[in-house]
Amino acid sequence: MRILLVGAGGVGTAITRIAARRSFFDHIVVADHDLPRAEAAVAALGGDGTRFSAVRVDAGDREAVTALLAAERCDVLLNATDPRFVMPLFEASLEARAHYIDMAMSLSYPHRDRPYAECGIKLGDAQFERAADWEKAGRLALVGMGVEPGLSDVFARYAADELFDTIEEIGVRDGANLTVDGYDFAPSFSIWTTIEECLNPPVIWEKGRGWFTTAPFSEPEVFEFPEGIGPVECVNVEHEEVLLIPRWVDAGRVTFKYGLGDDFIETLKTLHKLGLDRTDKVTVPGGAQVSPRDVVAACLPDPATLGDRMHGKTCAGTWVKGTKDGARREVYLYHVVDNQWSMREYGSQAVVWQTAVNPVVALELVAGGVWAESGVRGPEALPPVPFLDLLREYGSPWGLREQ
Amino acid sequence: MRILLVGAGGVGTAITRIAARRSFFDHIVVADHDLPRAEAAVAALGGDGTRFSAVRVDAGDREAVTALLAAERCDVLLNATDPRFVMPLFEASLEARAHYIDMAMSLSYPHRDRPYAECGIKLGDAQFERAADWEKAGRLALVGMGVEPGLSDVFARYAADELFDTIEEIGVRDGANLTVDGYDFAPSFSIWTTIEECLNPPVIWEKGRGWFTTAPFSEPEVFEFPEGIGPVECVNVEHEEVLLIPRWVDAGRVTFKYGLGDDFIETLKTLHKLGLDRTDKVTVPGGAQVSPRDVVAACLPDPATLGDRMHGKTCAGTWVKGTKDGARREVYLYHVVDNQWSMREYGSQAVVWQTAVNPVVALELVAGGVWAESGVRGPEALPPVPFLDLLREYGSPWGLREQ
Repeated sequence: MRILLVGAGGVGTAITRIAARRSFFDHIVVADHDLPRAEAAVAALGGDGTRFSAVRVDAGDREAVTALLAAERCDVLLNATDPRFVMPLFEASLEARAHYIDMAMSLSYPHRDRPYAECGIKLGDAQFERAADWEKAGRLALVGMGVEPGLSDVFARYAADELFDTIEEIGVRDGANLTVDGYDFAPSFSIWTTIEECLNPPVIWEKGRGWFTTAPFSEPEVFEFPEGIGPVECVNVEHEEVLLIPRWVDAGRVTFKYGLGDDFIETLKTLHKLGLDRTDKVTVPGGAQVSPRDVVAACLPDPATLGDRMHGKTCAGTWVKGTKDGARREVYLYHVVDNQWSMREYGSQAVVWQTAVNPVVALELVAGGVWAESGVRGPEALPPVPFLDLLREYGSPWGLREQ
Repeated sequence: MRILLVGAGGVGTAITRIAARRSFFDHIVVADHDLPRAEAAVAALGGDGTRFSAVRVDAGDREAVTALLAAERCDVLLNATDPRFVMPLFEASLEARAHYIDMAMSLSYPHRDRPYAECGIKLGDAQFERAADWEKAGRLALVGMGVEPGLSDVFARYAADELFDTIEEIGVRDGANLTVDGYDFAPSFSIWTTIEECLNPPVIWEKGRGWFTTAPFSEPEVFEFPEGIGPVECVNVEHEEVLLIPRWVDAGRVTFKYGLGDDFIETLKTLHKLGLDRTDKVTVPGGAQVSPRDVVAACLPDPATLGDRMHGKTCAGTWVKGTKDGARREVYLYHVVDNQWSMREYGSQAVVWQTAVNPVVALELVAGGVWAESGVRGPEALPPVPFLDLLREYGSPWGLREQ
């Protein structure tokens, strides 16, 4: 298998480090708009980098990506860029007859009149519209295959297959106790993406009602995270799982809540109040035109570089309530990464590493023919047990807590 | 008298409207880096604009301003730009042998090691260093001659001359109950300047100790503002009055507190936490280099355009505690502007109008030879009674509250 990895940021770089230890593929081409960044990712692999090469590509240039896939004879494109580049990379893959994997889906647009009640264009809508074309081409577009969405969706399918007879609610819950020395404010994940998902109207799915939205930061709830992380205040956030899980898993309700904490929520509200979350451009004195959200990102440290100063653990997981053998059951399926461990083992910080490991596991299942569907699929559309077993083999165990 | 007004923003435009009704000058040249903005200010005067003309000038280009003062045979330069342009305009005026008036002084730089305890370079230091040259030239540089600093300094001198035998403390207190329809967040004054003054270490003066600094937003206190504004939480802020008043008025302590309110303080703290208050440039994807603070300003509505949507009053004043004829005395000298009044009378919003009226009154006193000093002077260096009488004649009464 030959892979085109687009994006050599934090997650892309961690993907190269994780994949370098596996034998399932022949070659990975690491492509980035910033060639030195792609070259640095490959150089950092040292003697393990013989199956890697670096090239420059603009992820927004569909034709250039199609040509690169053909020139490099790639079987699959793995998208590790920010969500703005989902559609050009997804379309380029179809055109080049390559499989496609991403970790976030095509962007949503709020409902024009009732943004905090009804869905407008939903996450992934633009991708699912093309499902028939992918099926016809006999290729797999595996969408939302990071940790959340990704592993969280695998957990949902595993719960439905193995742990429950009926499911009342599936609630993805994400929380951490990470701190960063020397910074008042240092998000552990891309602030561009975090703003996008937290300030968009959160989406909820209910049987009989379908998808609907609420106001940002709605339904606050304190969730107790495992392995010493403890209680964290979580709020509704727009996330792919809510759009994916109901397509393949039978449940009464699906939600996603993020353990953002008060301080982070207030910061995001302030950015929104000032219009600094905007992506359209403003003109500054001197005439330069910039997107305010890009300026916010430029003012903050690159989360991928913070691993050395970071302490604590991050947890992604899926909380399922329902019945088994006539009795009520409630479980939390989870995956915790300790920053100290991921830094020591891979030189990658915990949140970035946790995102990166899952698409590599998925690639290995695709390469081995274990995951062999075609069409546009979420992770919950595919058999969960091989994934969870292989994740454990990568040295990264998951857990189950009966509540 | 011929006047060069530099800056046709909100305050500059209000200055033209106020001055147009007075006969003390022959001509005002309105100069701005954005010529259409200067032309619009003159055009808006209609038939009252015959003594005005518009030109383009870069306020940061000292030589160009010097040449313009000479070419237009101006007696005085009135600086209505933001504080970054104080020094080039101040130097150009001296070189052209013109008087100079500004409403904010040259910028401060925090102490390198102990920013929240000791002063580094203070507001106005760069201007006072040149005092001997102004005296030698026989010209007046009247610094800090807006409302605060400006009228607040005149009040301090008036209290010392007319109301007190000894003064324990002079505390300038600024508060408002302004709201803006249709905006979650819309500062009523330049956000660039507001960030500068609020995030710099606040300065305090005490007899025997001199000037020193504290942490931003220190010593919160609820002050009761007059004319229906009511109680507002005020905090220490770096402001020119603290640097000016002790040079000419005998007092035990001088402070400045701003009635910012909780929400505004939290917003400023968040901007600082994220580095969005920075004035040095950051590079965004695509290569554009911008100052984050300029981007914050570009995202917010221009305060000068908000008058129609604004409601409420703004108050500037000076709270003086001391003794008179052996008894304790405490007064608050203040100036309140109702936005409805300033919009109706001048088409200028309250905060902008209140800033603009004071330098026009000062110009009239200089033109008439009533204020006839030379050197670098604060407003409290000059006789206060003629100023306060003339201000009343402008239709804008001030008040005195015994506490």
